[in-house]
Amino acid sequence: MTSKKLVNTVAGCADDALAGLVACNPNLHLLRGHRVALRSDLDSLKGRVALLSGGGSGHEPAHAGFVGKGMLTGVIAGAVFTSPAVGSILAAIRAVAQAGTVGTLLIVKNYTGDRLNFGLAREQARAEGIPVEMVVIGDDSAFTVLKKAGRRGLCGTVLIHKVAGALAEAGVGLEEITNRVSVVAKAMGTLGVSLSSCSVPGSRPTFELSPDEVELGLGIHGEAGVRRIKMASADEIVTLMLDHMTNSSNVSHVPVQSGSSVVLMVNNLGGLSFLELGIMADAAVRSLEGRGVKIARALVGTFMSALEMPGISLTLLLVDEPLLKLIDAETTASAWPNVAKVSVTGRKRSRAAPAEPLEVPDSTATGGLASGQTVLVLERVCATLLGLEEHLNALDRAAGDGDCGTTHSRAARAIQGWLKEGPPPASPAQLLSKLSLLLLEKMGGSSGALYGLFLTAAAQPLKAKTDLPAWSAAMDAGLEAMQKYGKAAPGDRTMLDSLWAAGQELQAWKSPGANLFHVLTKAVQVSEAGTQPPRKTGLEPLGSHLYVTLNKLISFVYLFPPLNRERSTYLRGTVRLREMCSPSTVSRT
Amino acid sequence: MTSKKLVNTVAGCADDALAGLVACNPNLHLLRGHRVALRSDLDSLKGRVALLSGGGSGHEPAHAGFVGKGMLTGVIAGAVFTSPAVGSILAAIRAVAQAGTVGTLLIVKNYTGDRLNFGLAREQARAEGIPVEMVVIGDDSAFTVLKKAGRRGLCGTVLIHKVAGALAEAGVGLEEITNRVSVVAKAMGTLGVSLSSCSVPGSRPTFELSPDEVELGLGIHGEAGVRRIKMASADEIVTLMLDHMTNSSNVSHVPVQSGSSVVLMVNNLGGLSFLELGIMADAAVRSLEGRGVKIARALVGTFMSALEMPGISLTLLLVDEPLLKLIDAETTASAWPNVAKVSVTGRKRSRAAPAEPLEVPDSTATGGLASGQTVLVLERVCATLLGLEEHLNALDRAAGDGDCGTTHSRAARAIQGWLKEGPPPASPAQLLSKLSLLLLEKMGGSSGALYGLFLTAAAQPLKAKTDLPAWSAAMDAGLEAMQKYGKAAPGDRTMLDSLWAAGQELQAWKSPGANLFHVLTKAVQVSEAGTQPPRKTGLEPLGSHLYVTLNKLISFVYLFPPLNRERSTYLRGTVRLREMCSPSTVSRT
Repeated sequence: MTSKKLVNTVAGCADDALAGLVACNPNLHLLRGHRVALRSDLDSLKGRVALLSGGGSGHEPAHAGFVGKGMLTGVIAGAVFTSPAVGSILAAIRAVAQAGTVGTLLIVKNYTGDRLNFGLAREQARAEGIPVEMVVIGDDSAFTVLKKAGRRGLCGTVLIHKVAGALAEAGVGLEEITNRVSVVAKAMGTLGVSLSSCSVPGSRPTFELSPDEVELGLGIHGEAGVRRIKMASADEIVTLMLDHMTNSSNVSHVPVQSGSSVVLMVNNLGGLSFLELGIMADAAVRSLEGRGVKIARALVGTFMSALEMPGISLTLLLVDEPLLKLIDAETTASAWPNVAKVSVTGRKRSRAAPAEPLEVPDSTATGGLASGQTVLVLERVCATLLGLEEHLNALDRAAGDGDCGTTHSRAARAIQGWLKEGPPPASPAQLLSKLSLLLLEKMGGSSGALYGLFLTAAAQPLKAKTDLPAWSAAMDAGLEAMQKYGKAAPGDRTMLDSLWAAGQELQAWKSPGANLFHVLTKAVQVSEAGTQPPRKTGLEPLGSHLYVTLNKLISFVYLFPPLNRERSTYLRGTVRLREMCSPSTVSRT
Repeated sequence: MTSKKLVNTVAGCADDALAGLVACNPNLHLLRGHRVALRSDLDSLKGRVALLSGGGSGHEPAHAGFVGKGMLTGVIAGAVFTSPAVGSILAAIRAVAQAGTVGTLLIVKNYTGDRLNFGLAREQARAEGIPVEMVVIGDDSAFTVLKKAGRRGLCGTVLIHKVAGALAEAGVGLEEITNRVSVVAKAMGTLGVSLSSCSVPGSRPTFELSPDEVELGLGIHGEAGVRRIKMASADEIVTLMLDHMTNSSNVSHVPVQSGSSVVLMVNNLGGLSFLELGIMADAAVRSLEGRGVKIARALVGTFMSALEMPGISLTLLLVDEPLLKLIDAETTASAWPNVAKVSVTGRKRSRAAPAEPLEVPDSTATGGLASGQTVLVLERVCATLLGLEEHLNALDRAAGDGDCGTTHSRAARAIQGWLKEGPPPASPAQLLSKLSLLLLEKMGGSSGALYGLFLTAAAQPLKAKTDLPAWSAAMDAGLEAMQKYGKAAPGDRTMLDSLWAAGQELQAWKSPGANLFHVLTKAVQVSEAGTQPPRKTGLEPLGSHLYVTLNKLISFVYLFPPLNRERSTYLRGTVRLREMCSPSTVSRT
């Protein structure tokens, strides 16, 4: 069975992918008749050195993503994992030469096909009188003994694009660029690790790995690595990778040691989650710094992929200040990330948490609550809730996940515990705020969030005044917050409905001479009526299980039913609720 | 079985991933005690509006990758796919307020948990006197009928980060930013498609898809989409997606039609290969332009992922010039790509292939070859090769993939065909160059490349002179190119060995008075001896199957054995070759 792929045809994959990148990136042009992308401002490069790279497709964003001012002049793409045609490489060289560039450097990853095809195009172009040089990049640090074929070209090639690009942009000549990047290419190493294989469109996965194994040192075409290791933690795998690639007994090691300055690349081989990429980057930074290595810059992202391979590669490049300037130079290449020109090692990585605001001393203004009465009311509410725990859970088992009573008991116990610590604030605003924080912290879930929201918002109008109009405004503020963040409207059959009805009734408090108890009693009645479904829905009325006090404070704390569910759950539970929870079974204080 | 992941602990995933991004990005600071990342230059933002976003982890690079000058001020991250803690959101708001910002806009994706937790933090911050506004982004275009919960927040949220960031950077006030982005948020739509599920660390995949199905309209946590469709081509899937998300009978559609200007985002949901991402981007551009839609900008990459989900989302944002300026504004956010400030639609996407260089007229200088003799020699060589086709294939079956004879016959037929078209060039340089191109084009494989390389390089010294020293220099040039690009050295048991021996012998031509035929005969002898393995290896000698002519031209064409294999294959085939191919079985012209 071949892998599922979002493609048009297997044969057209490389063409379509390059066409897509060029279509979306106005800095690029295709060269007609070839799988070649060139800078669209080619004609502005007169007198400068051109930089061409490329190779098989399947490594995107390499290499077309690195075409732009300050990086590559163009790329030649082969079919998936296949070296590009000599004719196309030659066409690219001719195109940049005819645009007035003074010479071309070919940056080639060390694979036989690429070496031969780029080499041939180079010889042919030179035969036409075009100055062309070629550097072959082998940055693989996997193999500890020398292989005839040399080190494979991997993600470090992108750093060579960057360095050469900065030099070319600065007007440096072909020979000097060639010499400089040849030196830089020897000062780096790359090692990959993967959880699984990739598959070429139209083919099966390249290899198989058992569920508890990872492959170390594999190539970007799924070539075998140095060994398979048992699955381990991110830290352990990174340590193993860095040990391997910096070990001086490994002929392909990069000579990084304590005191070295490096550029670190953490490259997604394609299919790894960016969450894991971040975790591996964190592990790499800690491990390197633990070895005394100074990380000058760290690049994290997808640079040189192996189709959808779920793995990463780490690249280390030894740098000094002049080289770092080239890494930092500006580029318009779409796949080069925004990198801050600041050393990763040695800078502060956190700031202190902000100071908590000072608590305003308790208000002694009119409307302050008598501590004894507040405690009495709160304790009555808590005792009622605790007594209803199993009952509410049973109701909720019919409607939801059966923890409604448990959740509310958790809130009640939190309030009880808090009351034992000392007298509650006399200021209504502070009392509601404190209860809000308590429920947020201890009650949990969206119940806690919704009660917390209501109380936080309701507390605000009570800061300035605590008369009856202010209590009505507090109800309005709480209702507004609950609607806004909870996305419920009156009539949606949520906990809002009865609260909303009560809030409407409490508007009466805004009129001069309104009677506290009369209005509140009416509010309780309408809030109970508010639990009835609209007649037209044909639904059974919900038996009220409101337990409201006649105290205006507790109106706000528990006026709304403790059945905090989404509309659908609420409706599903309606019949059972009515059966199991008649008004008489609920105590009213 | 839970999925294989590169993590340290399941519980620490979100912390480690954020720590990694902050460690590698000096523009970021962690807020101690919280899973919060803030701009490290926070104290430079006095008097400006702060922008905070965030949500569950697992969507990287969202949101921490979008923190930076010109985008977000900070982000608050929850556990994987879990809303962040209210306390951390509040801490972030306080931190930016204490740094001197004049107000904070919370940019929140429309999920219940995020709405409630960000809402709560907002209410609490307002209670502390901090001006805080909140916009809830719902850009999902999947659901054709209105859902109570509203549209889900998806990749379009990143565009809101960008727009708000540009406004804040320009010094716009909190209320105006809130109003502007609220309008922008209504002018966009996003639709996802995936080949398979993702899995939260420590858990199994969220859902299962059969091998021939894709899920349309799914959410960024693996929530169900609108429907499952049969696997189809990239073009068909993109057409279906754009039809769905722009269909006016879909309540959540984005009103894009012919004449509209849009910003297009092609977002990797995590595990799709960038090859496929490019193919889908190509399909999207073609499909949109086919509908008369003008694509002002196109962003292709990983912006808002769903862990390692192998899929993409398309986002369309309706834009006018003022909005485009905000999209184009500078930012240092690491995950915002370099986007050219040029319209995607309406620009030229290709340039003409370069002109082929003019052929220099045939040299009539001394050393020009008599056409009749050249044809005679070439035809003799071709006939010999064709006669050996099966024989060489049989040899190769023992050593390689059994096509050595077929490959060389292909070359021979190409030369025969070319000879029928007209007389070959009299200039030796042009003759070798022409043969090189012919072999490159028609012979194929690395055989063609290596012969082509040799001949291209060998032609160069014959341009100026065609005397015996020039022919020796031509051999040297060919050998150098073959060694350089083929990465073989004499003694490596490759096709180079016998050629190298002959080249050493031909040095004699550089001495005055050297005898053409004497030296050439000696060269043939040593090149046959050069096929012998070194005595110390204990290997059997390779029976010679060289078929060289006494003509100096053909010395270059077929002096080397047509066994173009890597060292190991060459050695494996040694014994069988000796048995099957004694000198007497090969004709020598």
